[in-house]
Amino acid sequence: MKIARMATVAGPHVCVIEQDRVVDLAVAACESGLDWMAPWFRDLRLFLAGGDPAQRAARQLAVAGRARSLPLEAVKLLAPIEPGSKILAHVVNYADHGAEGKLIPPEQPFFFTKLPGTTVAHGDPICGHDFSHKLDYEVELAVIIGREGRDIPAADAYGHVAGYTICNDISYRELQANEAAPTLTGRYGQNWLQGKSLDRSCPLGPAIALADELPDPYPLQIVCRVNGEVRQNASTQQMIFRIPELIANISRAMTLYPGDVIATGTPSGCGVADGRYLQPGDVVECEIENIGKLVNTVMRPA
Amino acid sequence: MKIARMATVAGPHVCVIEQDRVVDLAVAACESGLDWMAPWFRDLRLFLAGGDPAQRAARQLAVAGRARSLPLEAVKLLAPIEPGSKILAHVVNYADHGAEGKLIPPEQPFFFTKLPGTTVAHGDPICGHDFSHKLDYEVELAVIIGREGRDIPAADAYGHVAGYTICNDISYRELQANEAAPTLTGRYGQNWLQGKSLDRSCPLGPAIALADELPDPYPLQIVCRVNGEVRQNASTQQMIFRIPELIANISRAMTLYPGDVIATGTPSGCGVADGRYLQPGDVVECEIENIGKLVNTVMRPA
Repeated sequence: MKIARMATVAGPHVCVIEQDRVVDLAVAACESGLDWMAPWFRDLRLFLAGGDPAQRAARQLAVAGRARSLPLEAVKLLAPIEPGSKILAHVVNYADHGAEGKLIPPEQPFFFTKLPGTTVAHGDPICGHDFSHKLDYEVELAVIIGREGRDIPAADAYGHVAGYTICNDISYRELQANEAAPTLTGRYGQNWLQGKSLDRSCPLGPAIALADELPDPYPLQIVCRVNGEVRQNASTQQMIFRIPELIANISRAMTLYPGDVIATGTPSGCGVADGRYLQPGDVVECEIENIGKLVNTVMRPA
Repeated sequence: MKIARMATVAGPHVCVIEQDRVVDLAVAACESGLDWMAPWFRDLRLFLAGGDPAQRAARQLAVAGRARSLPLEAVKLLAPIEPGSKILAHVVNYADHGAEGKLIPPEQPFFFTKLPGTTVAHGDPICGHDFSHKLDYEVELAVIIGREGRDIPAADAYGHVAGYTICNDISYRELQANEAAPTLTGRYGQNWLQGKSLDRSCPLGPAIALADELPDPYPLQIVCRVNGEVRQNASTQQMIFRIPELIANISRAMTLYPGDVIATGTPSGCGVADGRYLQPGDVVECEIENIGKLVNTVMRPA
């Protein structure tokens, strides 16, 4: 099953997407006389925390609500994350992306975060900024946590995964590399905050493929196109650290909650490789097999 | 005026603290027949966004509600931040702390973030963790944003500041320094995420001294005591980058919202200087002149 968040006059609702039709689960619950169940579908975290019972209900409501479903193109999808959730993103996790960025992959997992306020939905603009001329794309498989946990052993990790979506880890390379003050890099490292978390720097979505639909994220083809030209094209099979190892590492003494997102790194082919960075008007299309296509246009600097 | 967040049976409310008495502003508004005003006092971001009108109302309600005020020791204060707000923290900003940590201060501001879920209130425990034996304290002056803004010129910065509180930027030094994989530091930098954002690593509070009460944050004495012994003792006057410069830098292409927090760096005297790290049972007391005292006890590893 594929679920998403959609805008409604009553606020964000969780919906099911089947081909090009969308069922608003909160509305479907109420129309089926199951109002008591609607809160699950008004907050993605509650839906995910609802686990199997919530997913069973969603499956039934998707059938019951089919007659009143909406065409996908008439629905405004929102990024599949609630405002309080965190986004934990891994650095180089595909060897060839390391090579192009002149970064040796890490010996152990190494994470940064994208700030919660940075997400944009499928179809929304990515923001260019006057002081960054190295705006770069990074398609990434993003894991959605379904069950709260801390100190999660790798062997149990998939039991905490609800499903998968797509993240475009937009990066501002001159900021990330401290180009204006290069000696900073040796002392403090790359600027993971300003290089990765400016306004509108985290396209996420369009939908979450739940684990019932996508039981195994290896191998999946992972592609990024800019204005139709394929720029990144790889397989999740190439990841250096697999999802269980990432979850085991980042959950050490840090609680993961339903709705938290783990972005698993990007393959080669970014603008940093050949200097072909994003320009205003460019259309960036991130696609992962069995999940979907996340499309965003680069806006002129605001 | 000093305001804080307090726990009530109806959820977190904004309150005023006067000496050792607390007035719940949401309750005071309703008891004064001003129910329409109560939403301001049920979300700190709304109160701060309410600006002068909200603060004027709070001042009047603090007087009107005095007869029904509560003793401070009977009130459970919460960290003065709402779940969706961000915490932007500056690296070395006092030269002598740089020296003790063997870090040359940066030539330009350099920030990391503490994850939103890490905050703990005055009186709550700081968490020790089995795999970190270098648990360190860092008292910091924390700026509370009052007015939304982006690309804020330094000259306008104080117009976006609502007030000040205290942050204890708890750090896990062996994680921050990548001790288990030291070559990471040269490539990726310090581990600002896991070294700074484990569960319960951000004591914040106890209250916000609004700018009417604290018009100028320079100079303020800033002190940290561990079990009563003074370990850090400095003046905010010693900051390398002043608040306007910090706000101008971090707000470039990144919107600051009411309720966001900027932690301004810590003076010397941390455990990293002499290896005297925090142990379970230690009481850490962070005090800043005219703001208050933030006290937390270190818990055994959970």
